[in-house]
Amino acid sequence: MISEIGFDADDTLWHCENMFFETQARLEEILEQYAPREEVEAKLHDTELQNVRLFGYGIKGFTLSMVETAVQISGGKITGDEVHEILMMGKSMLDAPVELIPNVRTVLASLQDRYRLILITKGDVLDQTNKIDKSGLGDFFDQIEVVQKKDVDSYRDVLTRHEVDPTQFLMIGNSIPSDVLPVLELGGWGVHVPYRHTAVFERHEDDPPHDRFRRLESLSDLPALVADIVA
Amino acid sequence: MISEIGFDADDTLWHCENMFFETQARLEEILEQYAPREEVEAKLHDTELQNVRLFGYGIKGFTLSMVETAVQISGGKITGDEVHEILMMGKSMLDAPVELIPNVRTVLASLQDRYRLILITKGDVLDQTNKIDKSGLGDFFDQIEVVQKKDVDSYRDVLTRHEVDPTQFLMIGNSIPSDVLPVLELGGWGVHVPYRHTAVFERHEDDPPHDRFRRLESLSDLPALVADIVA
Repeated sequence: MISEIGFDADDTLWHCENMFFETQARLEEILEQYAPREEVEAKLHDTELQNVRLFGYGIKGFTLSMVETAVQISGGKITGDEVHEILMMGKSMLDAPVELIPNVRTVLASLQDRYRLILITKGDVLDQTNKIDKSGLGDFFDQIEVVQKKDVDSYRDVLTRHEVDPTQFLMIGNSIPSDVLPVLELGGWGVHVPYRHTAVFERHEDDPPHDRFRRLESLSDLPALVADIVA
Repeated sequence: MISEIGFDADDTLWHCENMFFETQARLEEILEQYAPREEVEAKLHDTELQNVRLFGYGIKGFTLSMVETAVQISGGKITGDEVHEILMMGKSMLDAPVELIPNVRTVLASLQDRYRLILITKGDVLDQTNKIDKSGLGDFFDQIEVVQKKDVDSYRDVLTRHEVDPTQFLMIGNSIPSDVLPVLELGGWGVHVPYRHTAVFERHEDDPPHDRFRRLESLSDLPALVADIVA
């Protein structure tokens, strides 16, 4: 039995990481005069990981980490104009339109009458709320939760508040550590739908060996998977 | 009758704006070689107001606005080391301990048995949650709400969700536009307790002419005011 389906948002319902990826490529280009691109990439990832405790997840923290990386990689030689360009890259990310993953509306429409749909997304509340508004998908969901962490405790809290039985809950998303593992641990179904880029925080080596773990090539395959599970 | 009391947090329960004020003073010092301090102050305020739609409220957005101001005020001549110092100022703000306003614990302890206490604070969820944790005040409150706006709609939403009758609700805070006016409009009591600095977003010229508006010199006077209103 499945009665509720949880959806991750970034890189599950709409494109997100591609924007970080492209912005990072442009940062590497700007800093190429100071250091090779691989070094910039490694330094940016280190900086992001070090800053996550203070900055959390989101574009503002990413932009601050880019500026910090630029200062360090350039040994303080970064120019005001280069810093300005990095700031403007962060602002255009915040202001970018939301591009939906193919077939999202069809998939949600086909599931919404039979299941309670819950959007569970991690990050900066203002950024995420703006994206939900821009996506036009808000009305498909019975509940929308913007959380600061996606771990066992935060899923337990969301499921308890909405009176969801974890064994009847299926979560789908592009991150094994954030969307799959905690839900499996609570007794639910975890469905992984990979995106072409994975954020440095969300990387995971091995598939969880678990009979309620599934992987889909595309979100479009979700209705068939759910029908198969409940059959 | 009063049954619920809402408390703003920043500059009502703990000091906050003084940190922005001191950081801004240091920014003016760094940029003094490029422009007079008043010009830096005016430019920073303009930049903050222009960026609030994209950045929302909080330290990360403030830090990005400081860097943007530095680039512009210096005509691009700002150095990497100066940018680095500005970034580090932002990080120390995020990492700063929470300093309580005098008598906060006594005031909350004296009210918590007779009234339902609700913390209603605006800003970045991660920043605000960290501060609530650091303050040690979380347990005094029946509900904690971190909102993105403090307007009539957002107060109505909070009060509805917690089944609060607006006419039995009193809100106290240091901002007339955010803590007083929307609550008065909903039929509740609005109590202003000024803080020595007021954020650029929260300034307000005139007192609201209203029979449920009150002003206190200090949070310590709140229990007596509430006793007076319910008498």
